[in-house]
Amino acid sequence: MFCWLSRLFRGLSRPTRRTTQLIWGSFSRSLVLSSQRRIPELSSFVARTNTCGELRSSYLGQEVTLCGWIQYRRQNIFLVLRDFHGLVQVIIPQDEKMPTGEIEIKVKTAKLLNSCKKLPFEIKDFVKKTEALRLRYRYLDLRGVQMQYNLRLRSQMVMKMREYLCNLHGFVDIETPTLFKRTPGGAKEFVIPSREPGKFYSLPQSPQQFKQLLMVGGLDRYFQVARCYRDEGSRPDRQPEFTQIDIEMSFVEQTGIQSLIEGLLQYSWPSDKDPVVVPFPSMTFAEALASYGTDKPDTRFGMKIVDISDMFRNTKVGFLQDALSKPQGTIKAICIPEGEKYLKRKDIESIRKFAADHFNQEVLPIFLKTSNNWNSPVAKFIMEEQGLGLIRLLETQEEDVVLLTAGEHKKACSLLGKLRLECADLLEARGVVLRDPALFSFLWVVDFPLFFPKEENPEELEAAHHPFTAPHPSDIHLLYTEPQKVRSQHYDLVLNGSEIGGGSIRIHDAELQHYILATVLKEDVKLLSHLLQALDYGAPPHGGIAIGLDRLTCLVTGAPSIRDVIAFPKSFQGHDLMSNAPDSIPPEELKPYHIQVSWPTDSETEKSSLNHPCHPES
Amino acid sequence: MFCWLSRLFRGLSRPTRRTTQLIWGSFSRSLVLSSQRRIPELSSFVARTNTCGELRSSYLGQEVTLCGWIQYRRQNIFLVLRDFHGLVQVIIPQDEKMPTGEIEIKVKTAKLLNSCKKLPFEIKDFVKKTEALRLRYRYLDLRGVQMQYNLRLRSQMVMKMREYLCNLHGFVDIETPTLFKRTPGGAKEFVIPSREPGKFYSLPQSPQQFKQLLMVGGLDRYFQVARCYRDEGSRPDRQPEFTQIDIEMSFVEQTGIQSLIEGLLQYSWPSDKDPVVVPFPSMTFAEALASYGTDKPDTRFGMKIVDISDMFRNTKVGFLQDALSKPQGTIKAICIPEGEKYLKRKDIESIRKFAADHFNQEVLPIFLKTSNNWNSPVAKFIMEEQGLGLIRLLETQEEDVVLLTAGEHKKACSLLGKLRLECADLLEARGVVLRDPALFSFLWVVDFPLFFPKEENPEELEAAHHPFTAPHPSDIHLLYTEPQKVRSQHYDLVLNGSEIGGGSIRIHDAELQHYILATVLKEDVKLLSHLLQALDYGAPPHGGIAIGLDRLTCLVTGAPSIRDVIAFPKSFQGHDLMSNAPDSIPPEELKPYHIQVSWPTDSETEKSSLNHPCHPES
Repeated sequence: MFCWLSRLFRGLSRPTRRTTQLIWGSFSRSLVLSSQRRIPELSSFVARTNTCGELRSSYLGQEVTLCGWIQYRRQNIFLVLRDFHGLVQVIIPQDEKMPTGEIEIKVKTAKLLNSCKKLPFEIKDFVKKTEALRLRYRYLDLRGVQMQYNLRLRSQMVMKMREYLCNLHGFVDIETPTLFKRTPGGAKEFVIPSREPGKFYSLPQSPQQFKQLLMVGGLDRYFQVARCYRDEGSRPDRQPEFTQIDIEMSFVEQTGIQSLIEGLLQYSWPSDKDPVVVPFPSMTFAEALASYGTDKPDTRFGMKIVDISDMFRNTKVGFLQDALSKPQGTIKAICIPEGEKYLKRKDIESIRKFAADHFNQEVLPIFLKTSNNWNSPVAKFIMEEQGLGLIRLLETQEEDVVLLTAGEHKKACSLLGKLRLECADLLEARGVVLRDPALFSFLWVVDFPLFFPKEENPEELEAAHHPFTAPHPSDIHLLYTEPQKVRSQHYDLVLNGSEIGGGSIRIHDAELQHYILATVLKEDVKLLSHLLQALDYGAPPHGGIAIGLDRLTCLVTGAPSIRDVIAFPKSFQGHDLMSNAPDSIPPEELKPYHIQVSWPTDSETEKSSLNHPCHPES
Repeated sequence: MFCWLSRLFRGLSRPTRRTTQLIWGSFSRSLVLSSQRRIPELSSFVARTNTCGELRSSYLGQEVTLCGWIQYRRQNIFLVLRDFHGLVQVIIPQDEKMPTGEIEIKVKTAKLLNSCKKLPFEIKDFVKKTEALRLRYRYLDLRGVQMQYNLRLRSQMVMKMREYLCNLHGFVDIETPTLFKRTPGGAKEFVIPSREPGKFYSLPQSPQQFKQLLMVGGLDRYFQVARCYRDEGSRPDRQPEFTQIDIEMSFVEQTGIQSLIEGLLQYSWPSDKDPVVVPFPSMTFAEALASYGTDKPDTRFGMKIVDISDMFRNTKVGFLQDALSKPQGTIKAICIPEGEKYLKRKDIESIRKFAADHFNQEVLPIFLKTSNNWNSPVAKFIMEEQGLGLIRLLETQEEDVVLLTAGEHKKACSLLGKLRLECADLLEARGVVLRDPALFSFLWVVDFPLFFPKEENPEELEAAHHPFTAPHPSDIHLLYTEPQKVRSQHYDLVLNGSEIGGGSIRIHDAELQHYILATVLKEDVKLLSHLLQALDYGAPPHGGIAIGLDRLTCLVTGAPSIRDVIAFPKSFQGHDLMSNAPDSIPPEELKPYHIQVSWPTDSETEKSSLNHPCHPES
């Protein structure tokens, strides 16, 4: 339905006036053919009999009532009427005028419902406008075909998900509170002053604690399309409030959650896209890092990272020798197909500069002319068997470019992972189709570490995801001796290189949970005493997942930003440009909440601008 | 399904140990009969093959895997296993033991999944516990049959509503922001400090502005199960966050919205209740006030208020003469059937005291012995034809009691409306069935006034509902001359005497909206400039409604409080008794938000306690 809509709108090439008027008319035609009802019924309960987009020649002769906006008007004789569903031609009879087009509507009565001021921009998707203007007049922007498609598709996908979860698999849709208390380490949680002096609610980042408590409460299969909140200040493509499909099950293992989600996406996938193929492939965290340099690999294309350390064990090249002699020292490479044809000298220069600036790493480009003719700064040090080995390992062909780096495993992989994506963008900018826009490449990433060393103090550990994640059953013995080596029962769902979901089997044993919180993570367990207590009262084994609905819809619709799949998003800076939120409040309205504004002094303002990421010092 | 569940639990009368353990077992039985799948599939993706509540003799002989809590255990031979779905008997084979009961499960292997500390209360609905204890251990309280029933019924009703709106009638489920800006007069809105000094978001009381802007945006049919927020301090049976089924349509009139909602409730009504009969009766606000003394009449029973002023035009009774001589002066009465039998002298006394204390009104009781024998303080002043008139108007019979009052129309009605409900409670406490618990009595109340005089300054007007409500088309001419007389296109939906929803046709004309905001209501239009501007760009005629989901579910389930249909409700004081929210926050965590706590001084604390409603002065 929506594809058709989009074609119709785009096919309209007549010039259109900027002023749109709203009209409600009763129209008659001269032949009757069909009147069967459609489901969903889009004209129930209202004055119209049909939507503008619905009419076809099979309706010829019927009397219809339409409501819509005037998209185009000529001499009050000819109108094009528009609603969310499409456009239709309307003729206001003038003596004897012949009908034109497949169908058109002969006006019997027409009523002007509202007038319209000159619009700040035309309601046409091809009309270029800044995002700021679109957000300021969001109520006009929403009339566009693409925004209508995005929001309606989102609604339909969520509805199908609900059918799958509730009707097919007995999940219970349960609403959990958003006025909660701060969680340990919840530095990104908005605070809400209450009427009790010094007491604050907090907007939770997810219903994590509540969903686990529901399992303790015997609810067995819970889901919620949950509003979540995260205060990260200004970050592009993040929203202070966002939505996740939040799921938790009792008596489940990792494979159960994975099958559930595969079925969920398959069931809810839009019918105008290629069907989802299940099961999704799976990859360990270690493998993802080694082959793609990231925990969210874009598996739509190759160019995988290859470890070529073994080729160079006896190398004479100084920096390669150096790298290999260090702990975790490796030599890695990626191969860019036809790189010589598509990458320019300045691309290679900017790749090397990026590696030096952001990773403090050297990257060597190798242009493969013929199998024995290496064009590279290190060409003269590469022996023939090394060259042949490289060709075999990297499956290089003539005109390919190899990017080689040497260094600590994780760092070398991360760098090449970034360069892999960078080169893919460069190649696509030059017309190579690497990532088919119709392809949706799902991937499970599993066996994450349970803890990471803290960045600011690597002697201490922090939870890789959250402190409720269960350790991998095979690694549980390491928890008390080498906790940094313990893998977790966490799993991420990746789509086309974006993380769209993540979850885990949770700890259901109070003692284990207490040990991890207090001894490993050194958290204040008092803040979580209710959860620890709940686990002590016969908590069932349980696990779950959350799918990021905004990101998922964005990928499915191909929208350039998550702001295009949200009706009223905030700007980069967290502002509502239409209503001007957040806004000032008179001090007396803060009194009931026992708070006052601490206005920053001039020196503080200066200091904070020094810390701003745009400042060269940062 | 849930009825059965509830019977099974209630039927269990064996003594039960307070300690419950969690078990996961693989069991075998000796006959195979049936294995058809049920929809919804409650055991997909998990280790169990069946729920405890699902098994019947048709499953005899099948091998099953169950997970659940041990409800009862005897000598490790006999177990009763419980999950959300029900109970089942389990036998651990000891040599040769004969099976008992219709079915029981012979254990092959069993695995203890978790242990359980001594519970603070048994998981039995008939075990009395305070609400504070239930809320503190909500995760245990949720295991009870009634809470499981309430939350599952709520989920199912909402799912059916979504099917009706999305699948049958083409509504689009659209999420609107909860981080918004303060609305004019939004004194009950929580504030959320942002990272910009002095700038605050606000949690909206409803998506009112957004839903109207969606109509301007051509979304045509919107709905959302919307989380709303209202900070009213401590109020019994109100929650600081609550949920409404929020609906808006373009090109619609009042009757369209009403039919939609009637269909919605009919479609989503639980199958274990009597079906909803549509259309619902309708009553004007004026009629509701005159006959029931309230805008939310409980129409499950009679005892309507009757105006008997005409009977007493020539009365000699002083206070009746006085009342009738004043503007809007009336004499009203209600008749309590068999009141003489059920109402005690002290009931009558407390009724008269209530009227005097809260309404400053006199109430006269008249005990009708026989048609000519009035037992009342005014009996001697009631002439025979007045008596006969009373009997005719009030349809009184022997042993009825008439309560009579005289005074200004609205005040007299309000008083008798309260007494009507009070007497119904009294009669029911004495065994009279006035309100059938299986009866759901829906009612539309329409033609509300558009404005009310402000309580603190009756010269000024305020919006009876909200300033976006459209005036009644027949009264529009009065808007510029006598605005207090204008009726609105607002409608309330009442169920069994509770308001469960309300909505209106909105103003879609920018000029009219500006006139009402600025001239009639004297609001600061700057705060709503985005909405006024949106109306100017071809806003379609539109209207909508919001249904209070918590209240509706509460009435449908017969729960004593809305807290019983919410998974994790707040207490009267707005506290989460389980996690102890709201809570203190270290001052450094408030710094990024540029706020600090203004701790009240001792004198302020005292002053605020003087203003507390419990204090005798208030």
